[in-house]
Amino acid sequence: VNTRRLAVIGTGLMGASVGLAAKRAGVDSVAGSDADPEALAVALERGAVDVASEELGAAVEGADLVVVATPVRTVPEIAAAVAELSGERCTITDVGSTKGKICSELADVPNFVGGHPLCGSAEAGPRSARADLFQDATWFLTPDGTSNPEATAVVSTFAAALGARPVEIDPESHDRLVALVSHLPHALANLLVAQAGAARIGDHDPVAVAGTSFRDLTRVAGANPSVWTDIFLDNAEPLAAALAEYRGRIEELEAAVRSEDAAALRRSIEAAAARRRG
Amino acid sequence: VNTRRLAVIGTGLMGASVGLAAKRAGVDSVAGSDADPEALAVALERGAVDVASEELGAAVEGADLVVVATPVRTVPEIAAAVAELSGERCTITDVGSTKGKICSELADVPNFVGGHPLCGSAEAGPRSARADLFQDATWFLTPDGTSNPEATAVVSTFAAALGARPVEIDPESHDRLVALVSHLPHALANLLVAQAGAARIGDHDPVAVAGTSFRDLTRVAGANPSVWTDIFLDNAEPLAAALAEYRGRIEELEAAVRSEDAAALRRSIEAAAARRRG
Repeated sequence: VNTRRLAVIGTGLMGASVGLAAKRAGVDSVAGSDADPEALAVALERGAVDVASEELGAAVEGADLVVVATPVRTVPEIAAAVAELSGERCTITDVGSTKGKICSELADVPNFVGGHPLCGSAEAGPRSARADLFQDATWFLTPDGTSNPEATAVVSTFAAALGARPVEIDPESHDRLVALVSHLPHALANLLVAQAGAARIGDHDPVAVAGTSFRDLTRVAGANPSVWTDIFLDNAEPLAAALAEYRGRIEELEAAVRSEDAAALRRSIEAAAARRRG
Repeated sequence: VNTRRLAVIGTGLMGASVGLAAKRAGVDSVAGSDADPEALAVALERGAVDVASEELGAAVEGADLVVVATPVRTVPEIAAAVAELSGERCTITDVGSTKGKICSELADVPNFVGGHPLCGSAEAGPRSARADLFQDATWFLTPDGTSNPEATAVVSTFAAALGARPVEIDPESHDRLVALVSHLPHALANLLVAQAGAARIGDHDPVAVAGTSFRDLTRVAGANPSVWTDIFLDNAEPLAAALAEYRGRIEELEAAVRSEDAAALRRSIEAAAARRRG
């Protein structure tokens, strides 16, 4: 790994996992900071950070790379503060699930490049952190005209050292892409739990007797409400567009079901089968 | 197990798994029949059936229990033929995913009771059959006014011996329930694969870079197109109703996202979280 001194701001699931994975990859030291003393203590106890600092300035002092792993809405302010406190030779990135707003608000910080490892866990917090969380995961990097190419190179090497596959993409495309393959699935899971959870059929609770397909579809439902409220708000436009398209697809399927259009139903299932195999 | 001589009509994934599980549970002999000689040969080779018969009459002769495990649309005709060929003391059941039509068409066969083990596999066919497929799964039994209580008792004991949890429910309630927790999830998975699969964002194929939430949501997409076309058609009314309600829920969420209604978004995620924990 290219990074010697790492600082992680926010030591929840993602930040603490970055710390564990970086130490396994050979980083010399990891400093950590978190507004929540409990999360910071757990990260220290688990060895995700070597030094815990309540002060942001102390945490980032001397760091080659600072990873901001706080909720998306707080990233611009914290990353800007980090830029003030750290040297120009320090690279700053984040791990937030949305990139458009963050990158445009940090346009005047050339040593910042947006990042987003596409992984997670049903459990939140540093106790659920894992050194292998990023293994084989896509790690988006979103350089735009305003970020240093060197910063992108540093984060790309770092992500690969943690086992991830770095993928460069512009911030707006990133947000449309994750709206489709991450935010939409989370939203669909929540809605399915809501619908099945509210139903009573005779004496039966549908959720209690459901099988594997329901469990698969709802595994991510209800994940960390404050984190996901922020993500939905921050990516409102692309998510709303994805939901609208999906709603149109449901309407089409509903029409095919009501008219008992066997050919259309079969085509739609076969298309899904072909795409999954492909 | 109460059954000594079992016959399985249709030796695909479900029928062959019934055979394997029944033998593990101590059934003396399993006769099998399938319109596809290849499927029948594989079931025999795997030990899911002891005797393979191309003739329905030979397969069901002397059976205590006949399990019809063919696609839902063929069940009424085959079960009626089995009733003609077997004795009155033979119990007949099926494993189809829909029950309303099947049970009403078999109203004049008192030794038939509808059944539906709520389980499956991404893979079809007897090569994917497993003796533990029914372990801890809900196995619906749908007696109505026209079926013998004894038949229900026989199938219930059999299902429990195979490791499943027998749950009695009337056919119409069954169909509404599985529309919600099985057919709707399958439909949603297909639509999500279709939407993400058709999208190209810059040079990126969204499906190729997607993470675990997308994979969870689409695991059942594209499952056995002919089987699932039949299921959607056979359960058209309850499925269309479930899709319509879901579409309304998407519309509400879309409105909350567009108006950046943080409180509504948070409430919906928290409700899903509470329901999952509960």
